Amino acid sequence: MIKQYLNLNYYLNKYLGKLPEPPVHPVTGQPVGPQDLAPLFPMELIKQEVSLDEFVEIPEPVREFYRLYRPTPLLRARRLEKLLKTPARIYYKYEGASPAGSHKLNTALPQAYYNKMEGVKRLTTETGAGQWGSALAMACNFFGLECLVYMVKVSFAQKPYRKVLMQLFGAQVLASPSKRTDAGRSFLAKDAQTSGSLGMAISEAIEEAVTHEGTKYSLGSVLNYVLLHQTVIGQEATTQLAGLKEKADVVIGCCGGGSNLAGIAFPFIAEKLKTGKELRVIAVEPESCPSLTCGEYRFDSGDTSGLTPKMKMYTLGSDFMPDPIHAGGLRYHGAAPLISLLRHEKLIEARCYAQMPVFKAAVEFAKAEGIVPAPESAHAIRAIIDEAIRCRKEGKSEVLVFNLSGHGLLDLKGYEDYLRGKLK
Amino acid sequence: MIKQYLNLNYYLNKYLGKLPEPPVHPVTGQPVGPQDLAPLFPMELIKQEVSLDEFVEIPEPVREFYRLYRPTPLLRARRLEKLLKTPARIYYKYEGASPAGSHKLNTALPQAYYNKMEGVKRLTTETGAGQWGSALAMACNFFGLECLVYMVKVSFAQKPYRKVLMQLFGAQVLASPSKRTDAGRSFLAKDAQTSGSLGMAISEAIEEAVTHEGTKYSLGSVLNYVLLHQTVIGQEATTQLAGLKEKADVVIGCCGGGSNLAGIAFPFIAEKLKTGKELRVIAVEPESCPSLTCGEYRFDSGDTSGLTPKMKMYTLGSDFMPDPIHAGGLRYHGAAPLISLLRHEKLIEARCYAQMPVFKAAVEFAKAEGIVPAPESAHAIRAIIDEAIRCRKEGKSEVLVFNLSGHGLLDLKGYEDYLRGKLK
Repeated sequence: MIKQYLNLNYYLNKYLGKLPEPPVHPVTGQPVGPQDLAPLFPMELIKQEVSLDEFVEIPEPVREFYRLYRPTPLLRARRLEKLLKTPARIYYKYEGASPAGSHKLNTALPQAYYNKMEGVKRLTTETGAGQWGSALAMACNFFGLECLVYMVKVSFAQKPYRKVLMQLFGAQVLASPSKRTDAGRSFLAKDAQTSGSLGMAISEAIEEAVTHEGTKYSLGSVLNYVLLHQTVIGQEATTQLAGLKEKADVVIGCCGGGSNLAGIAFPFIAEKLKTGKELRVIAVEPESCPSLTCGEYRFDSGDTSGLTPKMKMYTLGSDFMPDPIHAGGLRYHGAAPLISLLRHEKLIEARCYAQMPVFKAAVEFAKAEGIVPAPESAHAIRAIIDEAIRCRKEGKSEVLVFNLSGHGLLDLKGYEDYLRGKLK
Repeated sequence: MIKQYLNLNYYLNKYLGKLPEPPVHPVTGQPVGPQDLAPLFPMELIKQEVSLDEFVEIPEPVREFYRLYRPTPLLRARRLEKLLKTPARIYYKYEGASPAGSHKLNTALPQAYYNKMEGVKRLTTETGAGQWGSALAMACNFFGLECLVYMVKVSFAQKPYRKVLMQLFGAQVLASPSKRTDAGRSFLAKDAQTSGSLGMAISEAIEEAVTHEGTKYSLGSVLNYVLLHQTVIGQEATTQLAGLKEKADVVIGCCGGGSNLAGIAFPFIAEKLKTGKELRVIAVEPESCPSLTCGEYRFDSGDTSGLTPKMKMYTLGSDFMPDPIHAGGLRYHGAAPLISLLRHEKLIEARCYAQMPVFKAAVEFAKAEGIVPAPESAHAIRAIIDEAIRCRKEGKSEVLVFNLSGHGLLDLKGYEDYLRGKLK
């Protein structure tokens, strides 16, 4: 059982001599300090955000819940390999084995814990497809916090049972944009029929937190400490691969904000920075929201209303409105500053795919391996299949590893559309 | 990894000197022989049905797929214990960890395999809640068979994504009663608005099999060989408990046809028959379909049209029409002959619960342990909670074990109704 989170900033600082640029205040343009973030986050998380320690200890009450599902399995996709006639060996880390159904619980648990320790009564957040909202609802339930989730409107409609799941764990769920916040009302005034976006929902949740005593804000991706918490995935994966006497040649994850990619890849990248060994890391995005693939690297706001500090990141612009694809968790205009720096420094690659080939890959994988992937994770599968085919053409028996960040049992509407030929 | 199925008939014969009475032909009233069953089942399964060997070897190609998810975890429900302030230790075997989401894959895999080995091209079956249909669809996909599922109409409507899941694995799914079969048309003629039942769907699937070359019938419960395949659950559980130096005092499973109860309990009952040690086994039924609790022990038909051999079992009558409760997998008028014999010989107890207290227990469990149970499995949880409360009152630190036979992520409509106060 992993006892510490691994901090990539330590390795970037030591071996690359670079760190993500600090976020700046949206009004003054000055670097933000702890006092700027204190209305939103508990102090322990603010400390983790700027930490340069190599490791951060996982609190025992958090590890107790991790034991419900960690270590998650690292599985070999033998039937998929056979189907593709590839000499590559394909491994996947299955984070859908978590009770919340995705990797998001890895950070929801410590976030709920640290907030609880600092006397917070209620957490508020946004969710796209609902994976993050479900995870935070479960974590709040475990640690005795209230929870209010702003769920992107298109997902609220596409995935009604995600809402039921959050409610089952005691959370309140609102479709975003909602009429509850100034931000929500202004988005609705501009376009009453908007399908919503993660950027809008973040604006609402932040407004909720800063205008209510005892409420803080919780974010499921983008921030350094979120990516830090997710490194339990990659730490386990490196150990599991070593146990199989395998070394990864390519590591792949889908990328919205970047937390599941960071989770699987950072421990591998830390090793690469330390030893200089060969390793490719690929971030996979939807064609309809390709921030790393096509965005600009500049300071931009994390939400649509401009309430967050501005962060140096690859962005499509904070008012970018992505198509309502089924992979709601990837509909984010930016990418985590840490992931963006890695991309800028060419330590990772990025590519994007359209929705159809992604679902095609997902169905191929499900039929071969029995697990129905979340539409987000299916982006990683599309890339894995393409890499496996490349290995066949080049006659290379590489080790390909990807993060199957969640199951798709609550996303079957997307599969239904695909099977009926209704997918765009 | 378990290599053999455990045959309870061997133990019943040796230590109790009794066996379930053989099924009789629906028309002649004579015991049925292999030739009567051959149109429906492959010969290897017919042999297993009447086997008195202690063990039946699990074929390697089946074990290959078992390795995807077996052994399933045996978990301790510590937070539930704490919540109930019980001195009892509660363990659950989590079959929802299977890629099909329930224990049903344990028998779907060998059934698909043996049929494939004997040249069958297509399997047809019934499904209630959809757990069995999903499992058979997946198994047929793995072994290259076609699959046609008659899904009880009320579940077809309540659980649309179960249908999508089956279709994703290549199965054809029809709402039963359908217009495709004589049986279906006659049920619809009697009541065009019928919500359907497992008994009706079985009639349709059997008719489909006997009227189509290359098609055989597959049953997800009731038969001796189905219960035999499920004993992988209890064999693992006894080993896992022994590893924890624990001995079960009470073993609990929900009971429709009886396959998940048999799966967890038979290895424990075999031990009890062999050694005479104390052990309680409890079958838990819905109040709206209480065959073991309130039925008669007599020969009756397994389906509504009277196509199956008549079996000696506890039954509510083959034309019994259960309410459309969410636990569709428990809406069966009878119980497996083996389970019925155990009940008749007082080797197991039976009890039943109404839908409301069952969902209440399910939500308590989900909030405590993070896993949303299938409505069927929630019946076992209701009984476990009641037994844990009894232990508290009696000051007894008993070891309570139950089979969490499946997750409820595709049954959230039932939870939605419960949370909205719409459940009857």
